[in-house]
Amino acid sequence: MTLLRSFVSSANNAETDFPLNNLPYGVFSTDGGPARCGTAIGDQILDLTACEAAGLIAYGGTLQTGDWCAFMALGRDAWAELRSWLQTNLAEGGNTALAAHLVPQSGAALHMPFRVSEFTDFYASRHHATNVGTMFRGAENALPPNWLHIPIGYNGRASSVVVSGTQITRPHGQLKGPNDDAPRFGPSQRFDIELELGAIVGQPSNRPISVAEADANIFGYVLLNDWSARDIQAWEYQPLGPFQAKATATTISPWIVTSAALQPFRTSTPDREVPLLEYLLEPGPMLYDIALSVGLTPSGGSEHIIARTNYSEMYYSSAQQLAHHTTSGCPMRVGDLLGSGTISGPERHNRGALLELSWGGKEPLTLPDGATRSFIEDGDTLTLYGHAQAEDHRIGFGSCAGQVLPART
Amino acid sequence: MTLLRSFVSSANNAETDFPLNNLPYGVFSTDGGPARCGTAIGDQILDLTACEAAGLIAYGGTLQTGDWCAFMALGRDAWAELRSWLQTNLAEGGNTALAAHLVPQSGAALHMPFRVSEFTDFYASRHHATNVGTMFRGAENALPPNWLHIPIGYNGRASSVVVSGTQITRPHGQLKGPNDDAPRFGPSQRFDIELELGAIVGQPSNRPISVAEADANIFGYVLLNDWSARDIQAWEYQPLGPFQAKATATTISPWIVTSAALQPFRTSTPDREVPLLEYLLEPGPMLYDIALSVGLTPSGGSEHIIARTNYSEMYYSSAQQLAHHTTSGCPMRVGDLLGSGTISGPERHNRGALLELSWGGKEPLTLPDGATRSFIEDGDTLTLYGHAQAEDHRIGFGSCAGQVLPART
Repeated sequence: MTLLRSFVSSANNAETDFPLNNLPYGVFSTDGGPARCGTAIGDQILDLTACEAAGLIAYGGTLQTGDWCAFMALGRDAWAELRSWLQTNLAEGGNTALAAHLVPQSGAALHMPFRVSEFTDFYASRHHATNVGTMFRGAENALPPNWLHIPIGYNGRASSVVVSGTQITRPHGQLKGPNDDAPRFGPSQRFDIELELGAIVGQPSNRPISVAEADANIFGYVLLNDWSARDIQAWEYQPLGPFQAKATATTISPWIVTSAALQPFRTSTPDREVPLLEYLLEPGPMLYDIALSVGLTPSGGSEHIIARTNYSEMYYSSAQQLAHHTTSGCPMRVGDLLGSGTISGPERHNRGALLELSWGGKEPLTLPDGATRSFIEDGDTLTLYGHAQAEDHRIGFGSCAGQVLPART
Repeated sequence: MTLLRSFVSSANNAETDFPLNNLPYGVFSTDGGPARCGTAIGDQILDLTACEAAGLIAYGGTLQTGDWCAFMALGRDAWAELRSWLQTNLAEGGNTALAAHLVPQSGAALHMPFRVSEFTDFYASRHHATNVGTMFRGAENALPPNWLHIPIGYNGRASSVVVSGTQITRPHGQLKGPNDDAPRFGPSQRFDIELELGAIVGQPSNRPISVAEADANIFGYVLLNDWSARDIQAWEYQPLGPFQAKATATTISPWIVTSAALQPFRTSTPDREVPLLEYLLEPGPMLYDIALSVGLTPSGGSEHIIARTNYSEMYYSSAQQLAHHTTSGCPMRVGDLLGSGTISGPERHNRGALLELSWGGKEPLTLPDGATRSFIEDGDTLTLYGHAQAEDHRIGFGSCAGQVLPART
C-alpha cells in the first residue's frame, strides 16, 4: 500500500499520523462550542457533523450526536461507505468544496470519541504476564496454569475512561507493605502506567461469536493507558482481582483508528506452546504491526522515551479476546472497550509498565537529567504513541497523554 | 411503624409485599404497549407515567422515560416529595381519583426498572467467604488476609443484568477438572445461584465520599441473583478474578424498594474482629433486617425452599461498599448497581448458594420428591424472596425468578 494523496497538502508527507490512508474518527469542538464528529486529515479535521448537516453525506443524523456510537451502530456497510466517500472526496483532484469544512487541529479541543458502554481489560502479553507474575508470585508461579489456554481478562470501570489530556489525580487507597501489621489509608506510592491498545466494539452480539465474527465487529482501535496503583493492587487483588487499583482513570487517545485503515498491517499471533481450544483458533492474522512507545516528561522538563514495543508482541488478539468474552453468552454492546493488556516485549526497554521497567522499584530508570524513576512522580506527564509504518506513510494514532497531579489533601 | 392504610384495599393486609408503607418503583407495560413508570400498591400498580401526563405530578418528564434513572438523577428532594405525595394521595380518604390510573399487577408485564450503568459485585458475607474460601483454597486459607479490612469487590457486567422472569441459557465455557490434563469447552456442569441484595446508586459522585454520603446516595434496593458457573470460575479466576463465570446473567427483582421505605428496619453490622480504617466507619446502623429465602422449582414440579437467611448477616453494608468504591476517585453514576455479595448465615440452611448448600457437590440437597441437587439442572426455576417484617405489615421485594434452559447446541 502506498500513500494516497489528498488535496489537503499536510496529509501528503511521510511524517504525518493522518494521511488519506488513515482517516481516524474523533470528536472535537472549537471555541467552547458543541462537540462535533470529525476525521483527521494531515493537520486538519474534516467536520463531518457539518458535512452531514450540509447534505453532503447522510447517516440518519448519527453524526450530529457528538459521539461515534450511533454511527457505529449503523453497521459495516455504513463504515465502508463513509470511508470510501472520504477517500474519494478528500483525494487530490477530489471535492475541494470540502475545504470549507476543514478545521485546523491546532485550534480544536478533542473529546471522548465515543461513550464507553463497558470496559474490559486483558492480560495477554506473555512477557508482561511473566514479568508481573514473577514479581507478585515468584518465578515458579509467574504464568498461571490457565494463561496459555484463556485470554485472561477482568471487567474494568467504564466511568473512569477519559480522553488524552485529562489530568489524573494520584489516588488514595488501602496500602499494606509485606512487613506492616495492618493496612493504612493514604496516597498510592507506586502509581504506574500500562501501555495498551484498546479495541472498540462497533456491533452488538448476544450469543457466543467466532473469532472471525469478533474481528468483523471491531470498529477500530485507540491507544490506552490503564493507570494502575501497584501498592493498592498488591493488597486488594486476591481473590477477586484488581478493583480500586485500576479505577482512578484509564486514558484513551482521541482518534479511533479504524480496522479498515489497519488492514495492510495484519500480522499473526505467535506460535502456540500448547494448542488452543477450537473456539479460539484464528482464521487468519489477527494482530497488527503497530510500533508503540512511552514518553515521560517531568514537570518543567523535557520528554524522554522510556519504552518501545509493538502490538505484535501479544499472545492473544483483540478478536480472540472478544470471542472469549462472549462464550458465556455475555451480551456485547456498541461502545464496549477492550484493553489488550499491557504490551511488553522481550528486552528491558520493551516493557510497557514502570513496574516492569524498574523491576518493582529495584532497578530505577535514570532520566537524561540524572533524576530517577521507579514509579510516577507528581507532575510527570506520561504519553503513549503508536503508528503502523508503511514504506512512504504511516497510520498514526496521535498521542495519549496524562499529567499526574498530587493526591487530594 | 404501623401499617399505613390505603384506599386500595388489597394494600391493607398483613401479607401483601406492597402496603402504603412500601411504594416500590418499577417499570411495566400492558398489552404490549410502551414501558411506563409505576409504583406497586397492594395488587395494583399506580401508573406514574399517566399521573405525570395528567398533570397530577411534575418531574420534568422523567416519568415518561420508561426508566427510573432520570427521576433518580433529580435528587433526594424529588425522591422525598414523590414518596410524600403518594403516601398522602393513596391513603385511606386520599385522592380516590387516582383509581383511574391503577392497573392490576396480574395484567402487567414487568421490565428492567432502570438502565444499569455499571455493575459491581462484592464478597462481603463472612460465612459465604469462609465457606467458599475453604472449598477453593482450603480451610487454612479460607479468609484472605485483606478480607477483614476491605469490602472485597470486583466489576461485573452490566449488559448481562436482566429482570426477573427472563429465562437463562446454561453457559458454555472452558472447563478443567483438577485431574484433567487440559481444559475442554462445554456446557457448565456446576451452574449456581448467588442470593444477594442489589443497591442502586441514585446520585453521582466523582471524588471519594464518606459512608454517610454513600448511604444517602443509595436510592433503593432489589433482590439480585448473580448466576455463577462454578466450574468455569474455578479454572479462570486466578489471578484477575471471575470473568465469564459471572457474565451469563444477573437477575434482579422488578421493584426498587426505596431506602426511605426500609428506614424502620435499620440494623448494625456485626462487631469487628479487627478495627476498620476510619474511612469505613459507619455513623449509624447501615444494614437492614431483611428476611431472604430461595425456592427451587424443578420443571413440572413444586417449589421447595432450599435456603433462608437475612441481609443483616453482612459484614459490610452497601454504604461501606460504595464509600470504598470511590476511594480511588472512581466516578459513580446514577444507575450503578452494587451487589452485596452472597448472603449466607451460620447454619447450613442459611447458605445463599448451591455451592455452599451442597458443599461443592459432596452433600447434595434432597428435594421433597426424593430428587437431589448439587447444582442447577436444566428446567429448574430458582426464585429469591425478601421482605422486612413489621408487626402488622411487611415491606416486600416481590420475587426474583429465572428458569435455566439447556445449553445451546
